[in-house]
Amino acid sequence: MSKCRGDMRILLTIAYDGTDFAGWQVQPGKRTVQGELEDALSRLYVNQVVRIHGSGRTDAGVHALAQTATFDPPSHPKIPLENLKRALNHSLRPAILVRGVEWVPDGFHARFSAVGKIYTYTINRGENLPLLARWTWRKPDCPSPEKIAENASALEGERDFSSFTTARKDIDNAVRTIYSIKVREKGELLEIAFHGSGFLYKMVRGIVGVLVPVAGAPFDKESVSAILEARDRTAAPECAPPQGLSLTEVIYPENSKKMDMEDA
Amino acid sequence: MSKCRGDMRILLTIAYDGTDFAGWQVQPGKRTVQGELEDALSRLYVNQVVRIHGSGRTDAGVHALAQTATFDPPSHPKIPLENLKRALNHSLRPAILVRGVEWVPDGFHARFSAVGKIYTYTINRGENLPLLARWTWRKPDCPSPEKIAENASALEGERDFSSFTTARKDIDNAVRTIYSIKVREKGELLEIAFHGSGFLYKMVRGIVGVLVPVAGAPFDKESVSAILEARDRTAAPECAPPQGLSLTEVIYPENSKKMDMEDA
Repeated sequence: MSKCRGDMRILLTIAYDGTDFAGWQVQPGKRTVQGELEDALSRLYVNQVVRIHGSGRTDAGVHALAQTATFDPPSHPKIPLENLKRALNHSLRPAILVRGVEWVPDGFHARFSAVGKIYTYTINRGENLPLLARWTWRKPDCPSPEKIAENASALEGERDFSSFTTARKDIDNAVRTIYSIKVREKGELLEIAFHGSGFLYKMVRGIVGVLVPVAGAPFDKESVSAILEARDRTAAPECAPPQGLSLTEVIYPENSKKMDMEDA
Repeated sequence: MSKCRGDMRILLTIAYDGTDFAGWQVQPGKRTVQGELEDALSRLYVNQVVRIHGSGRTDAGVHALAQTATFDPPSHPKIPLENLKRALNHSLRPAILVRGVEWVPDGFHARFSAVGKIYTYTINRGENLPLLARWTWRKPDCPSPEKIAENASALEGERDFSSFTTARKDIDNAVRTIYSIKVREKGELLEIAFHGSGFLYKMVRGIVGVLVPVAGAPFDKESVSAILEARDRTAAPECAPPQGLSLTEVIYPENSKKMDMEDA
């Protein structure tokens, strides 16, 4: 749909190189992805304040292939979607790319409408080549893909992931579902893909830090289970560094983006 | 060999992300790869001036997987090769990686001892994803790999490449030999690898600009031959941009790095 409709919401799908950002979320005096997007949108809408709502925050140095965010465009000027995409990309490149711009119903929300997410963590077992260093964690003594997959299987399913988040102790609910953790070799690189219902703050990096310990010997599967059962961050070792992590996909129900035509 | 020998020369093999450099060659007031290497070496050798000699210059924004450079270390302090490598990488990361450090005979020279070079140019036919934008040229309307390979075959062999360089008209000799131009598909990416005896200033980017015109329709093979025959830069179209280009290998004769043991 290419109509401009003031009573509707726009969904952005965004890729970024997180290296030079202090993360997704707006922070005073810092360069953030949300901040640059909101500034660019505000300029396009003639200095009206535009607030966007992301599917979640990514941390400093973490990348995205397909982060999502929604916003309600000011009622004027009316900017056709194609022009909006082109103008945003003109001002945001090269560190941020707006890959998709689409109308969604008012009830759609980048975060609350999501039913799943896929994060990918990339490990480099070879030399720390400069063009790889931005988006991989160099770890020459990484356990074998088979060992990682075996340990990862202890974390699949609906679990309390308190041991894998640095979020406040008083968070309501640390239960999330990991549908799958898949390990794939690409030459010297090793990709670990996490498909889950949602992820707590620093949870993926916390899990990678258990599957591929930053220091010390790899765990056995029983130890991984014990760390999970402890429901205590101090039971788990150090997090893996941010630059290996990328938000690969935010999953929405099949029909959630469909416009209700009776409203039109 | 791990001995420290003051009367010998050291060969460095270096990878870099050229994005944030004004090229290889030292220029006053600018960040260059040679400049950062010389500064780091000078610090290690207690503020003695150290000059390095590269296999050739790479231009602003051009990358290297294996650039080479030689230098004659000051006679003191004596720094074992492994320590030298570690100390250089500590101060140069993440944009520069010293991959190799080795003793070579006095007569060895990074540039004059080289008998060949391989440059690789990478084109992205898909979306301009931020993590690809640093090291690929985005060109969705790129000719097919078969078409590129066909046109490239007109440029193989010993030729006068005056049409493909922006070097001064009065350069002695623009004759070089291209042993092969190979085209390889990797998903959305297309890699063109140039193996030659040596390359003139901006020659690879000039050739890519003919095989994959920046603007306008692709050439046919006869037109590519005609551009070559013209021996005139104005006969060729615009150069391809720098970020797709990487110096992949500098080739030396089998025995050229061997130490002459009678000298020891």
